[in-house]
Amino acid sequence: MNDLKQKILTAVENDLSEIEKALSDNLNPYLDLVSDVAGHIIFSGGKRLRPLLMVLSARICGYTGNYDVTFSTAIEYLHAATLLHDDLVDSAALRRGKPVAHSKWGNSIAVLVGDFLLSRALSISAGTGNLKVIRILSKLTEDMSQGEVLQFIRKGDVSLTEAEYLEVIRRKTALLFKAACWVSAVIADASDDEESALSDYGFNLGIAFQMADDLFDYTLETSDLGKEIGADLKEGKMTLPVIYALKQANSTDKDLMVKIIEDKNFSVADFKTLVGMLQKYGGIAYTEKKAAFYIKRAKDALSAFNSSETKETLLDIAEYAIARRI
Amino acid sequence: MNDLKQKILTAVENDLSEIEKALSDNLNPYLDLVSDVAGHIIFSGGKRLRPLLMVLSARICGYTGNYDVTFSTAIEYLHAATLLHDDLVDSAALRRGKPVAHSKWGNSIAVLVGDFLLSRALSISAGTGNLKVIRILSKLTEDMSQGEVLQFIRKGDVSLTEAEYLEVIRRKTALLFKAACWVSAVIADASDDEESALSDYGFNLGIAFQMADDLFDYTLETSDLGKEIGADLKEGKMTLPVIYALKQANSTDKDLMVKIIEDKNFSVADFKTLVGMLQKYGGIAYTEKKAAFYIKRAKDALSAFNSSETKETLLDIAEYAIARRI
Repeated sequence: MNDLKQKILTAVENDLSEIEKALSDNLNPYLDLVSDVAGHIIFSGGKRLRPLLMVLSARICGYTGNYDVTFSTAIEYLHAATLLHDDLVDSAALRRGKPVAHSKWGNSIAVLVGDFLLSRALSISAGTGNLKVIRILSKLTEDMSQGEVLQFIRKGDVSLTEAEYLEVIRRKTALLFKAACWVSAVIADASDDEESALSDYGFNLGIAFQMADDLFDYTLETSDLGKEIGADLKEGKMTLPVIYALKQANSTDKDLMVKIIEDKNFSVADFKTLVGMLQKYGGIAYTEKKAAFYIKRAKDALSAFNSSETKETLLDIAEYAIARRI
Repeated sequence: MNDLKQKILTAVENDLSEIEKALSDNLNPYLDLVSDVAGHIIFSGGKRLRPLLMVLSARICGYTGNYDVTFSTAIEYLHAATLLHDDLVDSAALRRGKPVAHSKWGNSIAVLVGDFLLSRALSISAGTGNLKVIRILSKLTEDMSQGEVLQFIRKGDVSLTEAEYLEVIRRKTALLFKAACWVSAVIADASDDEESALSDYGFNLGIAFQMADDLFDYTLETSDLGKEIGADLKEGKMTLPVIYALKQANSTDKDLMVKIIEDKNFSVADFKTLVGMLQKYGGIAYTEKKAAFYIKRAKDALSAFNSSETKETLLDIAEYAIARRI
């Protein structure tokens, strides 16, 4: 698995360093504080997966211009904007092992700098001069914001169904991955088939990526996770491992699980009990299986393209999205 | 003054009812809660000044299409988004005499629905299919968000200068008014001169409008104001009447004023003392004079247009912006 990571990193080394530079060059803040706060979230060890997908998607469609890297910052800024607001909404404490922005600068600054990053992302998309790109990204921000509301209002609801969970992760993660790949095909002036193939790749990868992320809360230790153990549960986020196990459990076990979930101050022992239930009732395995299913769909979508180094990297990224340990 | 209001309202009666309908038709929320929260801020007795300026600006440029009313909702949604986030940032209690959204639904929902409204506004602007319009509005949202940060970090700073105050109100109010008038000229396919004239009109009107608003905090009673007495001061907002009076005051009076300003729990008597100082040192009169100066510039900008009913209404609105009592 580390071999796969290394293979990907070697293949995209130049791209990642160009993306890193572009993220710094294009932020364009007028106030130092905005730069500090935005930098705190943007330069905090993110994987740059979304901008990387954009650069690779443009390349696989034969794009040879020089706007792809600049443009890829739009999606990363948009992603950072949602993280700033989400951490606030979730009352999160840590992200990637560091205190969240709102605990460092206060809620107001987190709200306002999030607004700036969202606006900056849409300005960069306007800078493409491509109406289709602009429409895809503005529609995306609308869909995502309502997804966040949906997640928020269903927090702590142990009756959340798998279909409702899918709707939440579709809006909060998969649509962003989909848009990242899709708009890059548009920028590259790709065929409809190529646009459609990359949309499908991004969407399915996004679903699987989020499922893998949701699994980590129950399979990793804090030191790897970069956030508190059981953080999702403490924030009331019902994810697939839990949803599935609750559905399968006998009534005694279900009652026990619900009791732990509804007690926001559960102990480490309680949490371990819950993780044991997720294993016992197949919540972990089911989620892994589902994630693998979506990754297969993502890979299949790429059959529209001939073999190339770029295609191989996109396939490797899909594989790694579920094989990774954070 | 009430005659002027009545004259304007009669002239724009149809426009206002079309705008009201469009605001309801174009919100397009997927969740009832989003609709409720957005509706709370959008349908709370706002003057609809910004969308009205858009419709009138398009008309004075000879626009005969039917997209102006729909498009005007973009600016009102954007305005509502900033109000939702501002009220949160300012810890405001009342707006237009009603409890603010975050006190009713909580901070998280106010953040997320604000994000939705901002996204919706940019989606509607993308819907024009006009790149210039899209660029003006996306740049506007960037400039405004940084203006909000500037205002926030300078809160309670009694050394704020008139120039810094102007920079804050330029970003938080005047650029929005400017963009509203400007993009409508663009939609109407107006000449460069007409675009420029309406930009100038909007910008100067916006500055004067904000100065008048800032005066109200010191000249109106709560029943008229729709918010607490001394609310700006309690939020640490240093506005022109205060900035000017502080600059003119002798050191004893200045110390007294600073003491009141820095005590967020000032009494009604303290507040009256402060208002007395603003009068004594000409802070009220100076602000009125400045606002009148910008209104003259706004009106002068319209000299680019021939006489018409629409022009007369735009001139009346400029007059009313400083003659109004809320």
